Amino acid sequence: MTHTPLHDRAAEFFVALQSGIVAAIEALDGQGRFVVDDWQREPSPEGPILGGSGRTRVMADGAVFERAGCNFSLVHGRFSEDFARTMPGDGLEFTACGVSLVFHPRNPHVPTVHANYRHLSRGSTGWFGGGADLTPYVLDVDDARHFHAVHRAACDAHPAVADYARFKRDCDQYFFLKHRHEARGIGGIFFDHLIEQPEAAFAFVQSAGRAFVDAYLPIVAKHRDEPYTAAQRDWQLHRRGRYVEFNLLWDRGTVFGLRTGGRIESILMSLPPEVRWSYDHQPLPDSPEAALLAVLQSPRDWLDEGA
Amino acid sequence: MTHTPLHDRAAEFFVALQSGIVAAIEALDGQGRFVVDDWQREPSPEGPILGGSGRTRVMADGAVFERAGCNFSLVHGRFSEDFARTMPGDGLEFTACGVSLVFHPRNPHVPTVHANYRHLSRGSTGWFGGGADLTPYVLDVDDARHFHAVHRAACDAHPAVADYARFKRDCDQYFFLKHRHEARGIGGIFFDHLIEQPEAAFAFVQSAGRAFVDAYLPIVAKHRDEPYTAAQRDWQLHRRGRYVEFNLLWDRGTVFGLRTGGRIESILMSLPPEVRWSYDHQPLPDSPEAALLAVLQSPRDWLDEGA
Repeated sequence: MTHTPLHDRAAEFFVALQSGIVAAIEALDGQGRFVVDDWQREPSPEGPILGGSGRTRVMADGAVFERAGCNFSLVHGRFSEDFARTMPGDGLEFTACGVSLVFHPRNPHVPTVHANYRHLSRGSTGWFGGGADLTPYVLDVDDARHFHAVHRAACDAHPAVADYARFKRDCDQYFFLKHRHEARGIGGIFFDHLIEQPEAAFAFVQSAGRAFVDAYLPIVAKHRDEPYTAAQRDWQLHRRGRYVEFNLLWDRGTVFGLRTGGRIESILMSLPPEVRWSYDHQPLPDSPEAALLAVLQSPRDWLDEGA
Repeated sequence: MTHTPLHDRAAEFFVALQSGIVAAIEALDGQGRFVVDDWQREPSPEGPILGGSGRTRVMADGAVFERAGCNFSLVHGRFSEDFARTMPGDGLEFTACGVSLVFHPRNPHVPTVHANYRHLSRGSTGWFGGGADLTPYVLDVDDARHFHAVHRAACDAHPAVADYARFKRDCDQYFFLKHRHEARGIGGIFFDHLIEQPEAAFAFVQSAGRAFVDAYLPIVAKHRDEPYTAAQRDWQLHRRGRYVEFNLLWDRGTVFGLRTGGRIESILMSLPPEVRWSYDHQPLPDSPEAALLAVLQSPRDWLDEGA
C-alpha cells in the first residue's frame, strides 16, 4: 500500500471535515441524529479495491432532512490496465481517501446538496479532486448566487491552483443528464487531478471543504419552514427520479464503485428516500417548475454581473 | 432501410400482440385505461437510431396496476463498428421491431412482470429475441411454478429452436444485480439471436408471446384482492428500488437506448411509479421477506420434480 506524504494529512483533514459537517447538520436539523456505521473491508483478490475501512454516517427522518448521508472512506487497491491509462501517475497500486455527502431535505423549497473531497495516490503521484453542487426543486436565484459566491471565494483565495470559472464549467458539464439534455441542478464547482503544487492544492481543498457549511446551511435555514403544496412535493419526488437517473447512469464514482465491488450501502446512500416516476411528466407552462427546467436545460453564469 | 422478408410479418404480429395484451390487462384491471401515445422519430444524423415510429400505451392508477406500460416500436439505423462486432450478420444498417412491457401492480402480493419480443434485421440476416420474467414481492411457489410451466410448454412445442432449460438459465443470468449478488426476480425465459430456421423461430416467438397472458393473468387474478400490510407495501417500495437499480445499471436495452438517443419516455416507462431507498434495508430474520431474498440470492429450478 503506497501513498504520498500528503495522504495521511489529507485523511486526517477529511475525518475532521466529516465530523464538523455532521455536527453542523445535526444542530441545524434539531431532531435527526446521524448514526455511525464503521466498516472494514476484508482484502479480496477480485476487483480493484483490495481493502479499506470507513465511517458511514446516516440520518433518516430528521426534522429537515429526510435522508442525509456523509461517508468517510480510505481504500487501497490495484487499477485495471485500462482504467489506469485514464489516470495520472505510474503503476497500478492506488490509495484513495475522501469524504462524500448527499443531503435530501423533505421540504421542496430546500435544495438537495452533494459534495465530495478526495485524495488519490498512485506511485509517487498524488492528486486532489472534489467539488460541491446544488439541486433545487424551486429555483431561488439568490440561493444559486450565494452557493456559487462562497465557492468562488474559496477558489479565489488559492489562485495558483483553483480557477472558479473553469471549475464551475466543469461542474455544469459533469452533472449533466445526457439522455435528458438537462443539468442535475444549478451547479457549483468540480475539480480533479490537482497534481501541481500539492501543498497549495491541499490548502485549497481545505478551504473548499470548509466553505461547504457556509455555502449550504444559510440556504437551508432560509427555506426550512416555508410552507409547500402537495403539487410541489410531487414535483420534488419526480425531480428526485432525475437524481437517481444521473447517479445510476452517468456518475462515474457510483457506476465504477458498484461495478468493481465498492461498498454498496455507502455508495447508494446518495439515492433519495422517496422517488416517483410518471410517463412523460411535464411542468405546466409558465409555472415555477417550467422556469427551473429552462435553467437546467441551459446552465447560467450565476455570478456574471449581467445575470 | 433493409430488412428480411420475415420483418413485416413479425411487425404485424407484434402490433396484434400489443393490442391483445393491452385489452386483456384492461379487462382484468376493470378501471384503468391505457392511453395511446403514437410517436414518430425524425431522422437524425447522430446516434445509431436514424428514424422510426411507435405506439406507446400506458396505464396509470388502475385498480390493480399502479403503472403499466406496453410499447411497440419499429426503428432503423446504423450500428457503430464496435457494437456491430457483438451482433450476427453483416453491414451496419439494421431494422428492429418489437413489443416491450412492464406492469407494476399496487398490491405487493401481485408480482411485477416484464416481457419483450423483438425481431432484428441486419443485411440478409434476421433474428428473434425476447423473453418474460416475474418479480414477486411475496414469494408464492405455486405462482413461480405456473409462470415457468406455461413458458416451458411454449418452448416444448418448438423443440427445433427453443430450449426451456437453456432459456431459463439465461434468464437467471441476465436479470441479475451483480452489485447486490441478487436476481431481480424468480426468472422466466430469455433468448436472443435465434437465427436458424427463421420460420420455426417465428412460430416459437408467437407461442411465447401468446403464452404471456396465460402465464401472468391467473397470478394477478389470484392475488389482486389479497389484503396487505403497510410493512408489505414498504418492502415492495424498497424492492422496486432494486428494479430501478437493475434497469439503469445493468439492462443492456435500457442503457443502450438512453446512451444512443432512444425515446426516453418509452424506455423509462419500465420504472416503477413509487420507489423507496433506505440505508442498509434488511428483512427480519425468518420473515417471508427473508425467504424471498434467499431465493433471489440462489435461483431455483422451479419445475424440477424435487423442488
